[in-house]
Amino acid sequence: MSEENLAIPLAPYRVSVLTMFPEAFPGPLGVSVLGNAEKESGLWALEPVDIRTFSSDKRGFLDDTPAGGGPGQVLKADVIAKALDSLGENDDRPKLYMSARGRPITQAKVREWSKASGLIVLCGRFEGVDQRVLDARGFEEISVGDAVLAGGESAAMVTIEAVVRLIPGVLGASESLDTESFEDGLLEHPQYTRPRNFEGLDIPEVLLSGDHKKMAVWKQRMREATTKERRPDLWDAYLSKSQAKGTPKA
Amino acid sequence: MSEENLAIPLAPYRVSVLTMFPEAFPGPLGVSVLGNAEKESGLWALEPVDIRTFSSDKRGFLDDTPAGGGPGQVLKADVIAKALDSLGENDDRPKLYMSARGRPITQAKVREWSKASGLIVLCGRFEGVDQRVLDARGFEEISVGDAVLAGGESAAMVTIEAVVRLIPGVLGASESLDTESFEDGLLEHPQYTRPRNFEGLDIPEVLLSGDHKKMAVWKQRMREATTKERRPDLWDAYLSKSQAKGTPKA
Repeated sequence: MSEENLAIPLAPYRVSVLTMFPEAFPGPLGVSVLGNAEKESGLWALEPVDIRTFSSDKRGFLDDTPAGGGPGQVLKADVIAKALDSLGENDDRPKLYMSARGRPITQAKVREWSKASGLIVLCGRFEGVDQRVLDARGFEEISVGDAVLAGGESAAMVTIEAVVRLIPGVLGASESLDTESFEDGLLEHPQYTRPRNFEGLDIPEVLLSGDHKKMAVWKQRMREATTKERRPDLWDAYLSKSQAKGTPKA
Repeated sequence: MSEENLAIPLAPYRVSVLTMFPEAFPGPLGVSVLGNAEKESGLWALEPVDIRTFSSDKRGFLDDTPAGGGPGQVLKADVIAKALDSLGENDDRPKLYMSARGRPITQAKVREWSKASGLIVLCGRFEGVDQRVLDARGFEEISVGDAVLAGGESAAMVTIEAVVRLIPGVLGASESLDTESFEDGLLEHPQYTRPRNFEGLDIPEVLLSGDHKKMAVWKQRMREATTKERRPDLWDAYLSKSQAKGTPKA
């Protein structure tokens, strides 16, 4: 058996999280398939690193007032650098900084990160982190949703969850990676299950017809209609892509 | 003192979370200013509700196979309805369902939700929730970031955190709501703090000049440049808005 054929990686996917609040973890990362994959199968490892233990200051300060004035406090570059460097030299894992200033997370980036040996995720607090350590250490700034948070921890959990579920072996047979929102540029169709009648509402008849061709057409139509209505941005991108392929849709 | 002048609401902002994994909470919602605001000040209350206790089935099943076929399982409408209805009748709090199929979260929606008496947040699992209960009970489907998750819990935390920090009294004096990303359509400028030199990198000189007018111009330019580079979508919206106001920018 050649090394390429091993379905399970030899070393676990290693996720280090730099945070002022390690006690916030694991949260949702510790339950269900992700929790099992860490605690039982050892497919990945979650390592919260407490930023508070890396102050260069006798009084333990981590933050200081913003240069040039303004409200709030800024996390110091030297503190973050020390916390990061404690992970070891030449660590080539992608480094993410969760930030409202960042580029939005995408499923394509998530897939890319899932193919690395692991991930380093920095959670900010206050008005943010001194820009110089982000630049000097090559952090990529990532946002999840256009809303302002109190810190980066919950955004880190969204990111880590999205990445870890793509690691081979993490998802069970009951879940599928084949047909998912964002994978082909369209949102998913709505789902229904038994009972046939719920409070006077029936499952759409086509789904009970057994006619696979009809059902496939219905699902595709629902995906297109939902995307058009809720995500005009994705819909426009989907149309451009379809037209480029010579299969125009409207 | 008239009732309008009370800065602190009489009843805490009540957040009920319908989830198969109540043990995932509070996570980041239990630390720092949000944790203090719940545990010490009583400004808000987090109530995870275990969906698993609401099966209508003797064997405790919560999910069933998708109507019309396809991979995975779907959470049953009657189970979700029973879990929701256990919160009481005529509950007029906004009802959110965290879903990759949803409309993206925005700071404007977050602000709107923060003005209600609380929030009901439904976390899905598997391939999702039977659409009929979402329609019948008026759930709004919300996504946070274009990435597929294993469940709704981490997205719920992002949403709840964004909302709760806007409740009057939750944020301390060290944090500010005045100048934030998304509030006026531009991302924030980068931040710097002491020391003046970090590994050979200096704080930008203008921020040390003490010239408030120059600093304001620099900050605005950085905000525009960062938004243009990282968020062409926000930048286009900002330009349209500026032009409509008769203050064109480029």
